[in-house]
Amino acid sequence: MKGLYYGNGKLEFRADLPMPVAAPGEALIRVLKAGICRTDLEIAAGYMDFTGIPGHEFVGIVEKTENPALVGARVVGEINCGCGACEFCARHEPNHCPTRTVLGIKGRDGAFAEYLTLPEKNLHHVPDSLSDDEAVFVEPLSAAYRMMEQVPVRGMNVLVLGDGKLGILTAQAVEILKGNVTLCGRHPRKLKVLEGTNVCAVLESELKPGKQYDVVVDATGRPEGIVKALALTRPRGSLVLKSTVANPVKLDLNAVVINEISIVGSRCGPFVHGLALMETGKIKLKQMIDRAYPLEEGLKAFEAAGKPGALKVLIG
Amino acid sequence: MKGLYYGNGKLEFRADLPMPVAAPGEALIRVLKAGICRTDLEIAAGYMDFTGIPGHEFVGIVEKTENPALVGARVVGEINCGCGACEFCARHEPNHCPTRTVLGIKGRDGAFAEYLTLPEKNLHHVPDSLSDDEAVFVEPLSAAYRMMEQVPVRGMNVLVLGDGKLGILTAQAVEILKGNVTLCGRHPRKLKVLEGTNVCAVLESELKPGKQYDVVVDATGRPEGIVKALALTRPRGSLVLKSTVANPVKLDLNAVVINEISIVGSRCGPFVHGLALMETGKIKLKQMIDRAYPLEEGLKAFEAAGKPGALKVLIG
Repeated sequence: MKGLYYGNGKLEFRADLPMPVAAPGEALIRVLKAGICRTDLEIAAGYMDFTGIPGHEFVGIVEKTENPALVGARVVGEINCGCGACEFCARHEPNHCPTRTVLGIKGRDGAFAEYLTLPEKNLHHVPDSLSDDEAVFVEPLSAAYRMMEQVPVRGMNVLVLGDGKLGILTAQAVEILKGNVTLCGRHPRKLKVLEGTNVCAVLESELKPGKQYDVVVDATGRPEGIVKALALTRPRGSLVLKSTVANPVKLDLNAVVINEISIVGSRCGPFVHGLALMETGKIKLKQMIDRAYPLEEGLKAFEAAGKPGALKVLIG
Repeated sequence: MKGLYYGNGKLEFRADLPMPVAAPGEALIRVLKAGICRTDLEIAAGYMDFTGIPGHEFVGIVEKTENPALVGARVVGEINCGCGACEFCARHEPNHCPTRTVLGIKGRDGAFAEYLTLPEKNLHHVPDSLSDDEAVFVEPLSAAYRMMEQVPVRGMNVLVLGDGKLGILTAQAVEILKGNVTLCGRHPRKLKVLEGTNVCAVLESELKPGKQYDVVVDATGRPEGIVKALALTRPRGSLVLKSTVANPVKLDLNAVVINEISIVGSRCGPFVHGLALMETGKIKLKQMIDRAYPLEEGLKAFEAAGKPGALKVLIG
């Protein structure tokens, strides 16, 4: 089949990839659309320890599986696949199973191809009201939602730092959950996506000097973003880390102790909540899409997604 | 009056210090006993931005105040004095009032002297069942308790790193609140304090390789302690920072995000809980006292408290 493959330090388009074979309990899915996220760019740049087909944001059609009722269904899929036997899986935390595979990220081929496989239990039906383009956002929107399971935002003053896709989705999710949310970014074009929402979208120079927030979300992907985020968190407030950075970061942990700040690492979220947020119809998604490229032009898509100021680039 | 004074880069004993004058709402207290803590050693070493009389762990007798019922009472006192007017004070969080003074630490003379002053509302009666020596521990024991307001420990596997006074008190407090607690230290003599409790006190070499804990408390006061603590925290677990370190620390925040760890800064706690813990009679305190020195020998007391392996040194 056709797909993008990362190996030997480079990403390439190949037409000779073997068809994936569904293991027992898994479904074979034909990919309709897939989205490029920052993690994919990091994989393509060799920052992650992954070889294979990247891609973890997708919508597709179930082609083959043991459960006949699922065949033909349009689905999205949770990306973490636990072993099913460890203490984390027993606690329904497959996201933290030490031997998990993760679609297109860890030990499992992903969505930048014609087909992929995932356990049936990872799949969720996509409501008819959502287009394919919108459905691709379920994974990052669920990740955005995840922080609300960890830190209450209702009535809180929340600052999201970073106007990347995850930052923009997070700000919108916080708004729907009744936080008073400000998003601070660098790209007027990206901030424009939030027009018509109640998110206060500002450039850094427009932040009120000296103001601190109950909850600050770092979605900058930059070490200096985290340092800035800490300084903007009020005593007893929460600093949520939504984006990873390649190298260790020097942090003033004295301030964390003295101001009793909580730093909360936050990753994947439950798709049921991402879908529910999307069905409110209030999340601006189409405005976040730059362009879709056919699979054959996947490398071009990666190039476009890596440009500063890029929004969501789709493949398919 | 007599007291220890830190100024011009050195700590000295002086007999010519002015008597403190109680402001409206404050009480004048004659100090019976005071304890030396690591923060005091840092003040004496010039690491903190403080000039004046240090000391914040004390028990004393109210000598003079507006409320006649208080005169003659044996008291301990909360060390943070808020402005009473800001948003933090309005939320009953004077510990985080931006213009607060802190007894012997920030803008307010402390307990290594014959007398001190504190707002009446900061004072707590000491039950007759507690000796002066024990009562000095109310402040650090309340600080140890504070983390239990932030992170649940009941039924959790809790690891306390560091066998200093705060580590030993924290481990005992966690045990009383039904955590399964291990304390890991470097000094067999200090670990011995925990004999007869249900705290599992071990040397580093005795930690089970590869085991991770639901809650890890860093009370080492060393940057490498925090890095080690992070590695010992299980996915979705909590790393509680109880001790400050002078310089910024390089942390692998990728692990924090991927494993969704919460890093929780934790400082002072409510004395009512410290007193309640102490009244259970289950906390080993006398075993933690090395020696008491008279005020005149305060510098010797500081020297003794600064020696590696030292436990609690008292003045008075």
